Amino acid sequence: MTDYNFNEAKNWFEELRNQLIKIVSEIDGSDFIKTNWTHRHQGGGTMAKIKGSVIEKGGVNISSVSGKFSSQMQDKIPGAKDNPNYKATGISVVLHPMSPKIPSMHFNTRYLMTTEQWFGGGMDITPCMDFKNLELYHQGLKNICDTHDSKKYSEYKKWCDDYFYLPHRKEARGAGGIFFDYLKNDWEQDFEFIMDIGKYFRDFIQSTFLELKNEKWSNTEKDLQLIKRSRYAEFNLLHDRGTKFGLETGGNIDAILMSMPPIAKWD
Amino acid sequence: MTDYNFNEAKNWFEELRNQLIKIVSEIDGSDFIKTNWTHRHQGGGTMAKIKGSVIEKGGVNISSVSGKFSSQMQDKIPGAKDNPNYKATGISVVLHPMSPKIPSMHFNTRYLMTTEQWFGGGMDITPCMDFKNLELYHQGLKNICDTHDSKKYSEYKKWCDDYFYLPHRKEARGAGGIFFDYLKNDWEQDFEFIMDIGKYFRDFIQSTFLELKNEKWSNTEKDLQLIKRSRYAEFNLLHDRGTKFGLETGGNIDAILMSMPPIAKWD
Repeated sequence: MTDYNFNEAKNWFEELRNQLIKIVSEIDGSDFIKTNWTHRHQGGGTMAKIKGSVIEKGGVNISSVSGKFSSQMQDKIPGAKDNPNYKATGISVVLHPMSPKIPSMHFNTRYLMTTEQWFGGGMDITPCMDFKNLELYHQGLKNICDTHDSKKYSEYKKWCDDYFYLPHRKEARGAGGIFFDYLKNDWEQDFEFIMDIGKYFRDFIQSTFLELKNEKWSNTEKDLQLIKRSRYAEFNLLHDRGTKFGLETGGNIDAILMSMPPIAKWD
Repeated sequence: MTDYNFNEAKNWFEELRNQLIKIVSEIDGSDFIKTNWTHRHQGGGTMAKIKGSVIEKGGVNISSVSGKFSSQMQDKIPGAKDNPNYKATGISVVLHPMSPKIPSMHFNTRYLMTTEQWFGGGMDITPCMDFKNLELYHQGLKNICDTHDSKKYSEYKKWCDDYFYLPHRKEARGAGGIFFDYLKNDWEQDFEFIMDIGKYFRDFIQSTFLELKNEKWSNTEKDLQLIKRSRYAEFNLLHDRGTKFGLETGGNIDAILMSMPPIAKWD
């Protein structure tokens, strides 16, 4: 694998970022504010944040960094045991809608290079009440997975359910989706899958917001959403691997905590 | 040390609980709702929660439990190495005021018995803006400490500052106070100190609320408070020893998370 692959992945993440920002801005009527940050090793990223009337808080982050893993990390990362060098590029998206009728939506895909290389990522949604398109949402993800490998969907779905679980509350963070890592079969096909997932997320958020953004909601429903978001906050701070990794390694605090809900309520 | 000491401590924590509930209820004009819970080993506790117009969310918890430490814990707890039996009794208080002019207030004292016995506890406050009685507050704590041991105040103050610190934000959770543990000199004198700290907290909250509860505040100031509370939530979930211990050992989830702010905002 070469820099060609890395750059192809990076370019797609940037292209998808641009598409998502355009779509979400148009739906909301507000602009994203972009902030660049640099990594303490090499490279950096761009956060794009929106605080609007449809999207109460949303973030679309891309980053491309390179460096050397600490000796402690080397043992944990595939292909890093004898060579600590890595390159990583990725896109990460969180949308917390104002309306409790619309789920919070989370998506990320990434590409890592050590002496090995692989894709990882996933998407999941967190409704706080009945979400009428839930079946369609899951079916859409299944269709994409099945197109690329007829055996993987149930594995990726379970991975997501297992990951986004709060053991101390014995409840799921949300309604799940898919989650995968160490995807390293045929590069072209893997990349196709990554792009398909991104396009699916893009189209899903567009259609969901356009369909539901004008539906009325009550204060009681908003309250349900704020309570649900406290679980989202608990998950991110107690369990999320990316958050823990970022905080422990001194990453950009605003980028790491971009995913936190705008307002959360503990009863 | 004997059950006499344990019961003396337990009785004081209950007496203080009753006094605090009476005072806070009168200030707020709302009642506490009490919930009993039982420990998976032996014993249990009572949560008392208030959601009012002056106290946006407050909790006064007492508990008295006994059991055996896991072999993993035995090495970490003084006096438990050769004998896993323990008894613990304590009171824990968090008040999140509606008004941003009034600091959030936190207090706890506890008594533990293994083959050794000791008191621990502390109090700290979290203003989100200028709190005019801050000097007096610290001076009062110093006076109590000095009365019992002229050398301890600076140690207890530093312990508090070090403990309530968010390294990922490089900022303090609040304005500090005192924090102490493994207090095991003369039992009668230690107990006197514990009671003095409790009375100081009781009188401090009473005078602070009575003085400030009718002061007007703006939406901008309320917003500052909600942001400050997000740091409170981060501290509790990322760093607080009691929260981590409770979640990991399957304690009562409502009692453990009683301290979480009612509403928090991540910008």
